Amino acid sequence: MNEKTITLAHGAGGKQTNELIGQIFKKYFDNDLLTADDAAVFETEKCRMAMTTDGFIVSPYKFKGGNIGKLSICGTVNDIACMGAKPLYITCAFVIEEGFEIAELEKIAEAMKKTADEAGVKIIAGDTKVAGRGQVDKVFITTTGVGRLYDNANTSGAYAKPGDKVIVTGDVGRHGCTVLVERNDFGIQADVQSDCAPLCNAVEELFKTTGDIHVIRDSTRGGVGTVLYEIAAQSNVGISLNAEAVPVADSVKGICGMLGLEPLYLACEGRLVIVVPQEKAQTVLDKLKSCKYTENSVIIGEVTDTDKGRVILETEIGTKTILPQPTGELLPRIC
Amino acid sequence: MNEKTITLAHGAGGKQTNELIGQIFKKYFDNDLLTADDAAVFETEKCRMAMTTDGFIVSPYKFKGGNIGKLSICGTVNDIACMGAKPLYITCAFVIEEGFEIAELEKIAEAMKKTADEAGVKIIAGDTKVAGRGQVDKVFITTTGVGRLYDNANTSGAYAKPGDKVIVTGDVGRHGCTVLVERNDFGIQADVQSDCAPLCNAVEELFKTTGDIHVIRDSTRGGVGTVLYEIAAQSNVGISLNAEAVPVADSVKGICGMLGLEPLYLACEGRLVIVVPQEKAQTVLDKLKSCKYTENSVIIGEVTDTDKGRVILETEIGTKTILPQPTGELLPRIC
Repeated sequence: MNEKTITLAHGAGGKQTNELIGQIFKKYFDNDLLTADDAAVFETEKCRMAMTTDGFIVSPYKFKGGNIGKLSICGTVNDIACMGAKPLYITCAFVIEEGFEIAELEKIAEAMKKTADEAGVKIIAGDTKVAGRGQVDKVFITTTGVGRLYDNANTSGAYAKPGDKVIVTGDVGRHGCTVLVERNDFGIQADVQSDCAPLCNAVEELFKTTGDIHVIRDSTRGGVGTVLYEIAAQSNVGISLNAEAVPVADSVKGICGMLGLEPLYLACEGRLVIVVPQEKAQTVLDKLKSCKYTENSVIIGEVTDTDKGRVILETEIGTKTILPQPTGELLPRIC
Repeated sequence: MNEKTITLAHGAGGKQTNELIGQIFKKYFDNDLLTADDAAVFETEKCRMAMTTDGFIVSPYKFKGGNIGKLSICGTVNDIACMGAKPLYITCAFVIEEGFEIAELEKIAEAMKKTADEAGVKIIAGDTKVAGRGQVDKVFITTTGVGRLYDNANTSGAYAKPGDKVIVTGDVGRHGCTVLVERNDFGIQADVQSDCAPLCNAVEELFKTTGDIHVIRDSTRGGVGTVLYEIAAQSNVGISLNAEAVPVADSVKGICGMLGLEPLYLACEGRLVIVVPQEKAQTVLDKLKSCKYTENSVIIGEVTDTDKGRVILETEIGTKTILPQPTGELLPRIC
């Protein structure tokens, strides 16, 4: 393969497609299950399995703290983990713009491999399509994952109960802020890095400690605020948030202040919102603090039987305001 | 939801995304496993499972005989079937261009639902992203499927053996020809319709008859010719093709004649290439002829221990020529 950029022939399903697969994808994704057939085959026991899919169209496709490849693996293993499941297998489908640099594609594949290894998942099948110039913006990736539910898992956005504590596993809004800065629409220079990370190992530790976890959600598109509203609606409860307890990095605070953005609505790609019974909150918090990527977990609020369907911000001096409902597109192509 | 076209807000993960999901996707895809959580959960027995993914970027997104929605389901259930497996669950991820008509999206979802029902699969999870105008061409769909291998299945592109018969399940090249005509690049008017169809029910019948099926492949991108070359390479065998036996519709013949195209290299989306031991060929053929979409199955050649890695065209008068190896991009965005 002598070309330095992607051509339409790389998406034609013939010789050049096979060369691209061999020299980029097989090089990084190779494992005992990855095959040249139409589908991969894996063995399974009698169990409950979780399955999820996500399209990634982030722009720019690389940013401080990651690129679209790392993001695509993190997004999918985190979604599986949020069901109380151990991610096992992932497929990835690329749509690449004609003219995209093959060296850049290799960096994306390398990041996917590294993240998949860290998450303990195998990439077992893939697909490559090429669209002409101007028909797709550089590179889109869709990843789909399956995983096995922990035997003691029983979590859902609908299971939050009044009295439960709400935990966030680190400072919020960093991914959204990073993409915003990289995109440079606003001419901002700031030292902020995406929180993009695989959280499945932390979740696995959690389920070794207790199965009594009502809700786990990753706060991606729409941020923590949107996730809280979804939980409030699905569980038909209110959520009372201690405004001061929500961790926000200084750089994120600064950018949000300048642009009038609410950090609670900026995407995270390495943060979980976890809702647990009050009596388990400290145990869960201690466990999270001992795990990579969730060291800075903190309780930010609790579930109420008042204000159903709403998220209420409480300040230290006791004032209460309704967190405005998320609407519209704050920042397109964040993930 | 009063908008008639897709806006960036539909992809923001908030209120408008949920409205779109509720009014289009849930309306058609609703089933007991589709959830509002990050992933769907299904139960499984101890078994072998097949998993496959495919991105669909066909242009135009609708054509005689189908649209991108029907194509995306067929492509994935057919890939699962080609492993000797019964497709069970499908996920779908949409990337939609800002400004795309919601009524058109609904037709796509409707086609997906209809095809999924026919194939006996459930759509259990999805994702919707919106890219700005000019950042994606109308609509792309990535579908991923899992299925359960039949207990007696043992097929792979690597299992063709000298003496085996090669069957194709109908006339070749219709999907490629249809897209070509619809795209109107060549100013051709012709009455040709895509062969796009779900073939998993026919394959299920086949495995009830015999597990002794060496290879099953669907001849999509690159057509039957490319699939035969792949089998020849994977199995390290030759394939001898009876040129006159390959079924080609008159309309396809006409178009190929005008444009100097080889029907063997035009994509099908409803045709299988099946390689079976000689002694099983008639049984398999009879079964295929009794199934929907494979009524016109025919033996087109056999596997040889000569000409390894090559596909040889034989004519009735005994001349032999090497089918040229597929290279390059005949027709981009065919699927």
